[in-house]
Amino acid sequence: MEMNQCGTSRITGVRFAVYPMTDRFVDVIKGALQETDTSKVWMETDDVTTCIRGKTVHVFDAAKAVFLHAAKTGEHVVFNGTFSIGCPGDNDADVYLAENDTPANEESLQAVYQETASHFALYPMGRDDYMQVIADACSTAEDLGVFSGGVHYASRLDGDGKDVFTALERIFTDASKEDGAHVTMTAAISANSPSKKGGGK
Amino acid sequence: MEMNQCGTSRITGVRFAVYPMTDRFVDVIKGALQETDTSKVWMETDDVTTCIRGKTVHVFDAAKAVFLHAAKTGEHVVFNGTFSIGCPGDNDADVYLAENDTPANEESLQAVYQETASHFALYPMGRDDYMQVIADACSTAEDLGVFSGGVHYASRLDGDGKDVFTALERIFTDASKEDGAHVTMTAAISANSPSKKGGGK
Ligand SMILES: [Ca+2]
Repeated sequence: MEMNQCGTSRITGVRFAVYPMTDRFVDVIKGALQETDTSKVWMETDDVTTCIRGKTVHVFDAAKAVFLHAAKTGEHVVFNGTFSIGCPGDNDADVYLAENDTPANEESLQAVYQETASHFALYPMGRDDYMQVIADACSTAEDLGVFSGGVHYASRLDGDGKDVFTALERIFTDASKEDGAHVTMTAAISANSPSKKGGGK
Repeated sequence: MEMNQCGTSRITGVRFAVYPMTDRFVDVIKGALQETDTSKVWMETDDVTTCIRGKTVHVFDAAKAVFLHAAKTGEHVVFNGTFSIGCPGDNDADVYLAENDTPANEESLQAVYQETASHFALYPMGRDDYMQVIADACSTAEDLGVFSGGVHYASRLDGDGKDVFTALERIFTDASKEDGAHVTMTAAISANSPSKKGGGK
């Protein structure tokens, strides 16, 4: 069994949707969900969004897998969602905290390369120094080679979808590492857009 | 000229996208943008999202118009975005603060009725009492007849798209009324979904 790096049972969640801009959107979404290994998370879909809850590593892994399996169809697909941890209004319901930290979808995604463009925004709640946390997040994205500069209300990331998810997971983990920290992070991640690249530096 | 109800020149913004789940997505988006009167806001679209900046009333009016003009095509269309005000990192660039408060798109939207289902989340930044602000937001939605209960990380709203935007604008305005308040609010608003209604009460 893997070493459990998470000292507490803090629950991470994401509420998101994957939007395939095609008449085949139902098939693309259903196919992506079927190809995603969700055995290490709790997941529920309603008519507006999907919610995944569990350990940070598995929540990011499952969300990434749903998006990339949809995007690899070649259709214009966008992931749009909000990651959260530590909300004081949260409870222990509807969660699966897997015993180990091995991402369930890492192997099946190994061969998937997908160019993406995204905007993300970090919201560290209930603290005065949140602008510093946001600045640190941009440095992290820059270190990881996916940062493309700021736009109004967000920062732009460009690169392979897996590298972008790696950066987002690192940023989210760093921002929420203090005991009891409540952090949310939005991300819109676009694949196969017919529009030309905009924004960034 | 209308009475200007806004005592300051605080800038509201939204970064959003409208996702039409159809092969015709480019036409649906272009048509919706053409039908929207953007004369009272600043607007810029890149390959990931669209940003609108201006007075609160006009930002909500323009965002609502883009969404409803896309949704009235009958296609499954989702609005997904984040409204913001008071970000300490913001500047005065790229904004148009119209002199009056008459929504430019109210008349053209009068005949548009569109059933919607949505999830929204409010993030009052840099303050300890933010959970109370969120509770007040749910009461407001309930008073306005569109509240359908909580889900993990969000609250659900159901009803006519115009009523839902009215509630979101009221909630955002109430939460940001204190001088210098920094507030963000996410919303995913779905129209013409083939999925059956889920969540809520
Ligand atoms: Ca969002």
